[in-house]
Amino acid sequence: MKKIILASGSPRRVEILKGLGANFQIIPAEIEEKTSLNLSPESLAMSLSFMKAYSVGSKYPDEFVLGADTIVELEGKILGKPKDKDEARKFLQMLSGNGHRVITGFTIISINENIKIADFEVSIVTFKALQDLEIEEYISTEEPYDKAGGYAIQGMAKKFIESYSGCYNNIVGLPDECLKKYLVKIGAINV
Amino acid sequence: MKKIILASGSPRRVEILKGLGANFQIIPAEIEEKTSLNLSPESLAMSLSFMKAYSVGSKYPDEFVLGADTIVELEGKILGKPKDKDEARKFLQMLSGNGHRVITGFTIISINENIKIADFEVSIVTFKALQDLEIEEYISTEEPYDKAGGYAIQGMAKKFIESYSGCYNNIVGLPDECLKKYLVKIGAINV
Repeated sequence: MKKIILASGSPRRVEILKGLGANFQIIPAEIEEKTSLNLSPESLAMSLSFMKAYSVGSKYPDEFVLGADTIVELEGKILGKPKDKDEARKFLQMLSGNGHRVITGFTIISINENIKIADFEVSIVTFKALQDLEIEEYISTEEPYDKAGGYAIQGMAKKFIESYSGCYNNIVGLPDECLKKYLVKIGAINV
Repeated sequence: MKKIILASGSPRRVEILKGLGANFQIIPAEIEEKTSLNLSPESLAMSLSFMKAYSVGSKYPDEFVLGADTIVELEGKILGKPKDKDEARKFLQMLSGNGHRVITGFTIISINENIKIADFEVSIVTFKALQDLEIEEYISTEEPYDKAGGYAIQGMAKKFIESYSGCYNNIVGLPDECLKKYLVKIGAINV
């Protein structure tokens, strides 16, 4: 029988898990007693994808629903969708010459089949050092404004990219390689 | 081939999902464009359980790790662990004579087997109308202070309960019935 770890020191949880007959050891998570909501970008992306999938799934309980959320993180700061030109400029200045993480969380839900799968994928993107003029030209287009972090790797911002690692489509908005195995599992694509 | 719903209107996501050969329709989640972090209690409990499992799992990549988080919600307000006697009193006064929801989110993670399962269970608890003396007696004990919502259904607060619906152990801190099917699936308990 496979052993598992219970990431909680709660004596109530220990008793309940014992009641299920599981073979386990206890290693409490260090964040256990934190009450603040400092979600990691991974948890946040997954949570937001979950909310999207759940809000649609609860109206279509017979269907499988896929939700996704992409987050751009630079040095611990989350860059959302820029709300105006000033914010778009600020984001691009921050990204210029630096590496950042792109995290896409996704959730597959089927209410009636009681399936909820949540996962995420992380890619790393490094920008070239950008010139002021390049930034001004780019933020005068419509491209940055509906994109997390204020750029689209598949769009005109392609020329800003020094390098990336990990799944390319994860940076675009959906990690196809990672998603594939789950879609095969639920029978939504053929192998 | 099973049809799925994509809960996103993003043209990038549509293209990527097409590339995987999935049969799908598009129904964007209404929260898609919200940038604020108003997580539902379900998403929050699941996210916190995910963080706990992930923080331990990343140190033990060969193991299956189970994290859990229990949230008490009364009329849209989340009652955490009371930090002192005044807060414990306030919580019990709020719970008195009312029904509330108890949501336990849980996550099972195995980094090396690339398994991440997140789910939650909801139970409803209704309190009797409490007398001031009962509240004062209860908050003078140690019981309320490490419990979400400031009470323990399995403890002295048992006598405060008018009724409950759903899984009892979910209210205690781990929804054994709901958890069981996943533990069987990963081979951590025998059927």
